[in-house]
Amino acid sequence: MIVVMEHRASQETVDAVITRLEQLGFDTHLSVGVERTIIGAIGQKRPEYIEQLGAMAGVERIVPILQPFKLAGREFHAEPSQVQVGAVTIGGDELVMMAGPCAVESEAQLIEIARDIKAAGAHMLRGGAFKPRTSPYSFQGLEEEGLRILATAREETGLPVVTEIVNPRDVELVVQYADMLQIGARNMQNFTLLREVGRSRKPVLLKRGLSATVEEWLMAAEYIISSGNDQVVLCERGIRTYETGTRNTLDLSAVPAVKHYSHLPIIVDPSHGTGRWRYVTPMAKAAVAAGADGLMVEVHCRPEEALSDGAQSLTPENFRELMQAIKSVAEAVGRRSGLSTIEV
Amino acid sequence: MIVVMEHRASQETVDAVITRLEQLGFDTHLSVGVERTIIGAIGQKRPEYIEQLGAMAGVERIVPILQPFKLAGREFHAEPSQVQVGAVTIGGDELVMMAGPCAVESEAQLIEIARDIKAAGAHMLRGGAFKPRTSPYSFQGLEEEGLRILATAREETGLPVVTEIVNPRDVELVVQYADMLQIGARNMQNFTLLREVGRSRKPVLLKRGLSATVEEWLMAAEYIISSGNDQVVLCERGIRTYETGTRNTLDLSAVPAVKHYSHLPIIVDPSHGTGRWRYVTPMAKAAVAAGADGLMVEVHCRPEEALSDGAQSLTPENFRELMQAIKSVAEAVGRRSGLSTIEV
Amino acid sequence: MIVVMEHRASQETVDAVITRLEQLGFDTHLSVGVERTIIGAIGQKRPEYIEQLGAMAGVERIVPILQPFKLAGREFHAEPSQVQVGAVTIGGDELVMMAGPCAVESEAQLIEIARDIKAAGAHMLRGGAFKPRTSPYSFQGLEEEGLRILATAREETGLPVVTEIVNPRDVELVVQYADMLQIGARNMQNFTLLREVGRSRKPVLLKRGLSATVEEWLMAAEYIISSGNDQVVLCERGIRTYETGTRNTLDLSAVPAVKHYSHLPIIVDPSHGTGRWRYVTPMAKAAVAAGADGLMVEVHCRPEEALSDGAQSLTPENFRELMQAIKSVAEAVGRRSGLSTIEV
Amino acid sequence: MIVVMEHRASQETVDAVITRLEQLGFDTHLSVGVERTIIGAIGQKRPEYIEQLGAMAGVERIVPILQPFKLAGREFHAEPSQVQVGAVTIGGDELVMMAGPCAVESEAQLIEIARDIKAAGAHMLRGGAFKPRTSPYSFQGLEEEGLRILATAREETGLPVVTEIVNPRDVELVVQYADMLQIGARNMQNFTLLREVGRSRKPVLLKRGLSATVEEWLMAAEYIISSGNDQVVLCERGIRTYETGTRNTLDLSAVPAVKHYSHLPIIVDPSHGTGRWRYVTPMAKAAVAAGADGLMVEVHCRPEEALSDGAQSLTPENFRELMQAIKSVAEAVGRRSGLSTIEV
Repeated sequence: MIVVMEHRASQETVDAVITRLEQLGFDTHLSVGVERTIIGAIGQKRPEYIEQLGAMAGVERIVPILQPFKLAGREFHAEPSQVQVGAVTIGGDELVMMAGPCAVESEAQLIEIARDIKAAGAHMLRGGAFKPRTSPYSFQGLEEEGLRILATAREETGLPVVTEIVNPRDVELVVQYADMLQIGARNMQNFTLLREVGRSRKPVLLKRGLSATVEEWLMAAEYIISSGNDQVVLCERGIRTYETGTRNTLDLSAVPAVKHYSHLPIIVDPSHGTGRWRYVTPMAKAAVAAGADGLMVEVHCRPEEALSDGAQSLTPENFRELMQAIKSVAEAVGRRSGLSTIEV
Repeated sequence: MIVVMEHRASQETVDAVITRLEQLGFDTHLSVGVERTIIGAIGQKRPEYIEQLGAMAGVERIVPILQPFKLAGREFHAEPSQVQVGAVTIGGDELVMMAGPCAVESEAQLIEIARDIKAAGAHMLRGGAFKPRTSPYSFQGLEEEGLRILATAREETGLPVVTEIVNPRDVELVVQYADMLQIGARNMQNFTLLREVGRSRKPVLLKRGLSATVEEWLMAAEYIISSGNDQVVLCERGIRTYETGTRNTLDLSAVPAVKHYSHLPIIVDPSHGTGRWRYVTPMAKAAVAAGADGLMVEVHCRPEEALSDGAQSLTPENFRELMQAIKSVAEAVGRRSGLSTIEV
Repeated sequence: MIVVMEHRASQETVDAVITRLEQLGFDTHLSVGVERTIIGAIGQKRPEYIEQLGAMAGVERIVPILQPFKLAGREFHAEPSQVQVGAVTIGGDELVMMAGPCAVESEAQLIEIARDIKAAGAHMLRGGAFKPRTSPYSFQGLEEEGLRILATAREETGLPVVTEIVNPRDVELVVQYADMLQIGARNMQNFTLLREVGRSRKPVLLKRGLSATVEEWLMAAEYIISSGNDQVVLCERGIRTYETGTRNTLDLSAVPAVKHYSHLPIIVDPSHGTGRWRYVTPMAKAAVAAGADGLMVEVHCRPEEALSDGAQSLTPENFRELMQAIKSVAEAVGRRSGLSTIEV
Repeated sequence: MIVVMEHRASQETVDAVITRLEQLGFDTHLSVGVERTIIGAIGQKRPEYIEQLGAMAGVERIVPILQPFKLAGREFHAEPSQVQVGAVTIGGDELVMMAGPCAVESEAQLIEIARDIKAAGAHMLRGGAFKPRTSPYSFQGLEEEGLRILATAREETGLPVVTEIVNPRDVELVVQYADMLQIGARNMQNFTLLREVGRSRKPVLLKRGLSATVEEWLMAAEYIISSGNDQVVLCERGIRTYETGTRNTLDLSAVPAVKHYSHLPIIVDPSHGTGRWRYVTPMAKAAVAAGADGLMVEVHCRPEEALSDGAQSLTPENFRELMQAIKSVAEAVGRRSGLSTIEV
């Protein structure tokens, strides 16, 4: 790391920083410019050193040089990872399509949707049994009953199931039903939950926090991997900005940025990313073109009766059109899409 | 709520919306303008209705009229609330000062700080035993040992203790040691945790999320209150913006905004709010002038050795100066400060 | 518009609002709910009415119903517009590629780049003669000499030229050399400049402001069109967020949003949008898939010697690869790309 | 500056960077760590070097060490500056109060307000003759007639006048009437205008841009000062965030930050900063406590008839209360307020 001293920092403060760095086990290099003295420090940095040194007299700021993530980063794991969920490979040639309702509402509802999306070429079924809702008065999910219905839908259709987990206590329960555990945006920095899913053996879908930087997101993945579970897939779902015309601002540049810094697969959720069903298909196409390894899309047979997120849900018919629309984009960027694998 | 139809929405779509609203139990008022038809709906709204109606054909957008919070709001609770933590009253005439280290590091460290801040006029001791850290490689807190040390410091000084809770499983443990439970910014929408502390009888300090609107913050308070615990104090601690010169942007306008919409007390944390010890005292003064009911300030005897947040910590000497500085500001806005109550 | 009265607003304040609305020429509809009274107002709204009514006693807020843009909007101009720049049509079947250096540095530099990008299939040449730079000590552009060089490059290659204008005084000068006038992000709300280019007959490329909403951007277009010039093309170039890994956050959902609300063509600038040459090609592909009518890309023969924006510039070789990469994406979404029209 | 090379950057790329730095006149220091090589460069940096070096092969990023502003910075001008506007000193002991309507609407309106605010203790009169409005259909100001009215109000009351300038062409005209030229938020990076007011001899009030960092704001001041005019006062007026409950988010931490980095005086505009008259007085008190050198407040005799910004305007009565409220806060932080100087 680099310690930048204040303009006209005294010799005493410079010496004190060097002494402290050497106590902490760093080799130091002093560089005295006309306007600033800077001290390079080579050695093993612990995260708290930055804060501590920043608190010393005469120090203007600390510039970290190394990336804070190791296991999630590409520097020591150059090859892209693949994550296996049942028979589905995420991060391979084939674009992986996850679809389904925001919330599981009933067995009839879910099985109808599951059949529709399977027929349209989806690879996995999504559906929330535990719903993190902004209002305590909103529908909070069917909980274990919802998990049971998801498992039934998997038996009916063969589609592996991804569902959100919100409570560290529920990991044991949810792993009995689900094929992949989702960490929602609001829990991206729920470190207790990250460690808990890190101790399970199930693949994890880690959504980006509402206002998380790419670096913080990779650090959340680092929590899971460093707890023992390297089966992590990232999901961009829009970030919070001042724009009010869309629910969030879908940050597709996160796709090449994640690919640059990390070996983990990344998928995109254009439903939460835009909050409006009209924009889901164009942004799905854009995500595929940007290099996403898959998509997660909300589908509901009757969006106008959905207990959650109706305004951003596609009908099964809209979803079939989306699948058609992304087929040729996927091929244009050298990927196979779901439609290639079903018989038409 | 108001349903705004699209420009040139057909009569069929208008009729369908009216029919649906009536099914849902609303009285409707139709208003046909030159460019838009709008439908007013009077009745009991459930949160999901907005999404559902927004998904109907011909609907441009839904405008909710009522505030989504009830128990946290001022409309049905006009008088300001006070929250009692031991002998300390938050929300009364006296400005409440909470101070202490970011993390509990050792008994010696904490007791030294606790004595210093008490002598300077603080009312409560803060200190983290469970630390939510961005990096899994950072110091994560002393956990139960930290709680024990906090209780010892309270015995030594008489200062009630506030400490963060990060795991719903730990509520039973933490309530045995702490006088007030803190929900950190990253857990503001950890709804499982909110409900769990809502079921306890301890006062709760609810920090604003990194990118939470005031409305979302009040909804998080609504979760706690609707679970049975109305002893909630809000804490503004800075929001995330594009500005990189400070760690966060301290949003002091949240103080009058919360006072306008809610009866709950609100305090301000200028340490996390700015991330730089230099700006803590000016922003502490500003918070008091804006009408805050108290402050939470990080103090460490040797910030350059702190295991967390050294760069934003005041030394005990700086803290004494802060207490002096806010004394006259507090009086200027009609509040008593800690210094009024100790013998000098 | 809708006037929402405060909870328990008195009858007097309600009456005063109605009287005022009627003075202003509105028809009013009163709707009295259990918790709120709202007043619908039908008639011709002037923008200042919202502010004025919001200042009346008992008024909680004003909800505008109509979109504030008329000439830029789709409601009274349902068909997509096309803008003609020399022989190039923006908004038609063919994806329009604008490329060139950030700044015109010399005749040799510009002509070399112009030939390279033309050979690669570009349709228009970009290059700055007047550079709005954050620092007064940065290279500020060659000014009229730069314009002259741009005109020479056009003669050499036949590519029409787009260049930025920063001073209302320069319109007469710039129109003598350029085929299209660019309004940069920092001038999107320089209303004097917008009106001035609105009085010229040249097509205008209007970049989105650093923190402009889509609505504000369309209002800026409204300024130009209402001044007499309807030849406006919008350009998304990234917005400012807290993310520091990229220079800006490219908001591709602005493409379908603009297409939904407006008839104007929209292109995307992935160079400024990301600030990093590595991410330019993936985001260019994504922009095309999202439905953009064209792209603007920075190209420099020696980015490491560029006087502006070297880090985000493609080399001519990178640009040829980009053109290849977007060809198949363009075809996948039913557009012709530049490569279709040149002989290979 | 520091050049950070990529992980495993080749020796050739390191050598190429060193060669290039030496060509540019820098002394270089090489520091080879286990995971990264970094190159320190000492010498005179031009802004474009950062971009150029960032474009070289093997370079991960460039870390500038020095602040980009010189004339606006405190390093070479340690003492706080004072700016003189007629008999008013900004940046001295006395808190300077500027007040008046958003827009000049008529002579009668302005003179009534001017007398009211003077009686309440204001030092300067504000009022817009050229109004930058988001909508082309909003009231755009009385232009020269408005300037004439401002001058009349000054003659009537003795209050110096500050008014916004939006067009570089108008500088000669406006300086004939105004005592201080205001650059509005939307023009903070209108560099043509900055240079033009930099060539005049009038004091300048430079508002912070809607999404400008403190560093960019000081660079805008640097434009004015480097053009020859060092009579610059900064004005914080709120930044754009995701929060919708207030018009902007007033960033009061900008006050101590500006005081830390710069010698220029800084005032605060709580009217635009919050957009709601209810929050103006608490935030005015907070601004004074944070150390602001003055305030700018919108006052209108009949906000509900104002042609601009009614919802955030105080009535003269509210303004008198604000003056009372800040008097004691000003004294608490060691400043004199306007009320100290008028006879009561």
